[in-house]
Amino acid sequence: MVGLWKPKETYRAIVVILDGVGDRPVPELGGKTPLQVARKPNIDYVAKTGVTGLMDPIEPGVRPGTDTGHIAIFGYDPYKYYPGRGPLEAAGIGVELNPGDVALRCNIATAKEVNGKLVIIDRRAGRIRGEHVRELVRALNKAIKEIDGVRVEFYPATEHRVVLVLRGTGLSPRVSDSDPGTAQEGQPIREVRPLDKSEEARRTASIINKIVSLSYIILKDHSVNVERIKKGLLPGNVIITRGAGMVPKDLVRFSKRFGIRGYVIAEEATVVGAGRILGLEGEIPKGATANLDTDMCSILKSALRAYERGYDIVFTHIKGPDIAGHDANPRGKVYIIEKADWLVGELIGSIGLSENIITITADHTTPCTVRDHSGDPVPVAIAGPGVRRDDVASYDEICCMKGGLGRILGKQLIRIILDLMNKPLKWGA
Amino acid sequence: MVGLWKPKETYRAIVVILDGVGDRPVPELGGKTPLQVARKPNIDYVAKTGVTGLMDPIEPGVRPGTDTGHIAIFGYDPYKYYPGRGPLEAAGIGVELNPGDVALRCNIATAKEVNGKLVIIDRRAGRIRGEHVRELVRALNKAIKEIDGVRVEFYPATEHRVVLVLRGTGLSPRVSDSDPGTAQEGQPIREVRPLDKSEEARRTASIINKIVSLSYIILKDHSVNVERIKKGLLPGNVIITRGAGMVPKDLVRFSKRFGIRGYVIAEEATVVGAGRILGLEGEIPKGATANLDTDMCSILKSALRAYERGYDIVFTHIKGPDIAGHDANPRGKVYIIEKADWLVGELIGSIGLSENIITITADHTTPCTVRDHSGDPVPVAIAGPGVRRDDVASYDEICCMKGGLGRILGKQLIRIILDLMNKPLKWGA
Repeated sequence: MVGLWKPKETYRAIVVILDGVGDRPVPELGGKTPLQVARKPNIDYVAKTGVTGLMDPIEPGVRPGTDTGHIAIFGYDPYKYYPGRGPLEAAGIGVELNPGDVALRCNIATAKEVNGKLVIIDRRAGRIRGEHVRELVRALNKAIKEIDGVRVEFYPATEHRVVLVLRGTGLSPRVSDSDPGTAQEGQPIREVRPLDKSEEARRTASIINKIVSLSYIILKDHSVNVERIKKGLLPGNVIITRGAGMVPKDLVRFSKRFGIRGYVIAEEATVVGAGRILGLEGEIPKGATANLDTDMCSILKSALRAYERGYDIVFTHIKGPDIAGHDANPRGKVYIIEKADWLVGELIGSIGLSENIITITADHTTPCTVRDHSGDPVPVAIAGPGVRRDDVASYDEICCMKGGLGRILGKQLIRIILDLMNKPLKWGA
Repeated sequence: MVGLWKPKETYRAIVVILDGVGDRPVPELGGKTPLQVARKPNIDYVAKTGVTGLMDPIEPGVRPGTDTGHIAIFGYDPYKYYPGRGPLEAAGIGVELNPGDVALRCNIATAKEVNGKLVIIDRRAGRIRGEHVRELVRALNKAIKEIDGVRVEFYPATEHRVVLVLRGTGLSPRVSDSDPGTAQEGQPIREVRPLDKSEEARRTASIINKIVSLSYIILKDHSVNVERIKKGLLPGNVIITRGAGMVPKDLVRFSKRFGIRGYVIAEEATVVGAGRILGLEGEIPKGATANLDTDMCSILKSALRAYERGYDIVFTHIKGPDIAGHDANPRGKVYIIEKADWLVGELIGSIGLSENIITITADHTTPCTVRDHSGDPVPVAIAGPGVRRDDVASYDEICCMKGGLGRILGKQLIRIILDLMNKPLKWGA
């Protein structure tokens, strides 16, 4: 019998992303993976009461970065929407970027004029940092406001790093680096070249070359550098650029694309930055060290606070498993998995599974035997109301092979979660 | 603890391709498939110690050819990179093709002038072959070197077949056949028409029409034909064309695309040719008959020799299972599978699994009950260091349904193998 029409219930979601948690058999663990060895009753509870499977963050066999892996989990095809390193760094320090803006990663470096050319003495200006960087950046922003009709902005980033943003029309990210690269001290600063034949790339390269030249003129006799030289420190007298990127012009922001509001709790700026570019708000919790000693309690509090503020989906990123993989430290990986298990237990205890979809997954695999990311799929588990439960009882690379989700792609995950939230629009009739 | 930086280990790979080995339940085998019935301890060892799954060479339900199936296994999307029959035939006989070149399959045929039109008397000129074909091809190459700025080359192929290659810019493969087709004796040679509205197609069709007309003028009174007519044989007095194709202009060769060197050991020219077009070197081993009586020992030696010469990946193709499928010979299929099992055993015994990734798969299914290719998926098994072992213990169509790879596409296989070789570049950071 059809009763009175009643709006169907919608739910909210939390996605726990265990960075690099996937692994391969580790000899030190008797041929098991850290996920197989770890005691993780809460994470396994999600697997046991939910549906599981394997997920290729990008495509089978393709090795994701943390950035491309997260862009996929946030629901965007990284082949179309990867903005490059510059915009990720910019977004990571909170710079608002609009589609069409070009952002670059820069160093404040030490250069010397040799036969009319600027030669790099130190790519990091003796690891200049803090107030010195901020003062030099202020000087640059005062002196250079616009070049050829394009707005120019400098922002201090971590340590010797600076973000350069170009805002205007007719720009292109297809330009080479002026930074000659690591271990290239003694080399001249490279001329920035267009990487394709477009007028936009030619123009952007020309603007960046002007900025690099101007930066030396502005910085070389700056009082900060006069003082540094007196003290025997290397002066920060030039800006060198790399990693030009652009926010894709056809990007539709997260809330508009999926009709829900999302928030990212992450342990590193790249992940928060990737979220910001896609239109997700976010933060790095206090006490998050992006390592095994992280303050899991602080991460939990941040996640619950975002949930209480009404966000429909809260992504919670834990970096430690990836670090342990890079360090070939399988015991450390087991340790941080067990620590993350506590967080999952507290999350379930606090908000419950009756009106929430909880997902456990990873942005990529970081095998301890490889010490770097690999292209293996990662396990995924989703629990909550309406989920079609399979008979997998553990969240690990082997058990989830038999999961009811089968093998999915990273960019598909959000639609599956959205569907369980009863949120997506119907396509067709 | 982080030790000194050490480059991570990379591995090499062998891929054994059992042509058409997939099957459907065969009544004669009690409803089992030949793979289920065959005694194949070595192939099953790969399944048992490795990860398994099902693979759709092209897409679920799509019936691949041997050419399209292999193009997918070699890591290229056949929808984008299938060059057509002409280039495959050309590459199969060792003709080097460059992106942009057009190649066609031709017959030397017998024609007669009727009311100013050339009418086909015999499409194969009485199955002309050997020295006669080579002499006529020499005559064509001497007389026709260039038409409208396009280089024209003729190559003798098997029996009455000739390959025609056009080299130059502004060509298109989108042209119709001049060959009226099988059982069309008595029909006039067709005018080649452009199949789209491009200037390239119009120009290419015009050039081919000129070549067909010229070939009759050059060949009709050639001494070979004078002699043949005297002997009561049909003269080979015209070239008729079909299967125009082009190596896609945006093709990136295998070694550049994947960063590894590959070699193809195959039992037939089409497979070696498909490999060559994609930039893989290859050979047909001596004694390879492409049938049940093939010299498996010779194939093994060729594979090991390529491995010893340092190729990163060696594809080893065995044709027999496909022939048995076409012949509705399930017992024959069991026989050749068991013979291939010996090869797999020798391969594992020679090079081991500790530093090599060994894959068993197929280019398509050739059910004995269908006597032709079908669109069913094929089983795949991958073993070697770092592989996440599943609990499947047999390489067959049914057991591999439960494999840890799930269901993958042919074009994805190479990336999965590459990843286990620890070879791919990371995408992102």
